[in-house]
Amino acid sequence: MPVLMELSRLVVSDLTDQQAMYLREVGGTRMFPILIGQFEAQAINRQLLEEEPFRPMTHALLKNVITALGGVVEEVMITEMKEHTYFAVLKVRIGDTVHGIDCRPSDAIAMAVHYSPALPIYVAEQVLHEVG
Amino acid sequence: MPVLMELSRLVVSDLTDQQAMYLREVGGTRMFPILIGQFEAQAINRQLLEEEPFRPMTHALLKNVITALGGVVEEVMITEMKEHTYFAVLKVRIGDTVHGIDCRPSDAIAMAVHYSPALPIYVAEQVLHEVG
Repeated sequence: MPVLMELSRLVVSDLTDQQAMYLREVGGTRMFPILIGQFEAQAINRQLLEEEPFRPMTHALLKNVITALGGVVEEVMITEMKEHTYFAVLKVRIGDTVHGIDCRPSDAIAMAVHYSPALPIYVAEQVLHEVG
Repeated sequence: MPVLMELSRLVVSDLTDQQAMYLREVGGTRMFPILIGQFEAQAINRQLLEEEPFRPMTHALLKNVITALGGVVEEVMITEMKEHTYFAVLKVRIGDTVHGIDCRPSDAIAMAVHYSPALPIYVAEQVLHEVG
């Protein structure tokens, strides 16, 4: 069973290329960090700060494209970890079909926080076992 | 009439946050630069160098999402310049409908070069007058 989690902390530093986001179990205590890039961290941070850029940034464009094509992002999920790399999917519904689209966790969480309320963030139980 | 142009030069520097892409008229001599951000410049540069990242970067995700939803990006266009800011659209067909989706020129060109051959890049004649 995938576990519902939330973005609990984001560490953004100009001094390094590697930033970190922490996911924490909703109604639980499990938590783990995922290292992400600076651009993706900034994209997430702007949303957390409710900054509205003058022009659509790339994740806002992605959201706008999905909406224009009649799609709805239902949730995001961290599905597995292989060789220190986390894999994720965007679950996008169009009509009766839900597409699970392969992505990096940073893009998944950036998308999640572009919605209000944020999209549900799930993490596969197996991933939590491996990082636990 | 929009003018068909191509990406003729990309200037990427680690020393500054502002990078530049130059668009040149196909079969003509008109050319102009647009300043873009570092992340977007890197996204374009990776495509020009035919680097294949291990995991989908954000523009590849955007391309994959559009394809999964049954959309086809037909072209990109720089539509206007207002107060030193260029505006662009992605033209995405789904069925019989073409959606013109508002975006920054850097995302438009990054998307264009994610296809092989690259998507057509158009610039509104009015924009060329203003930068000429």
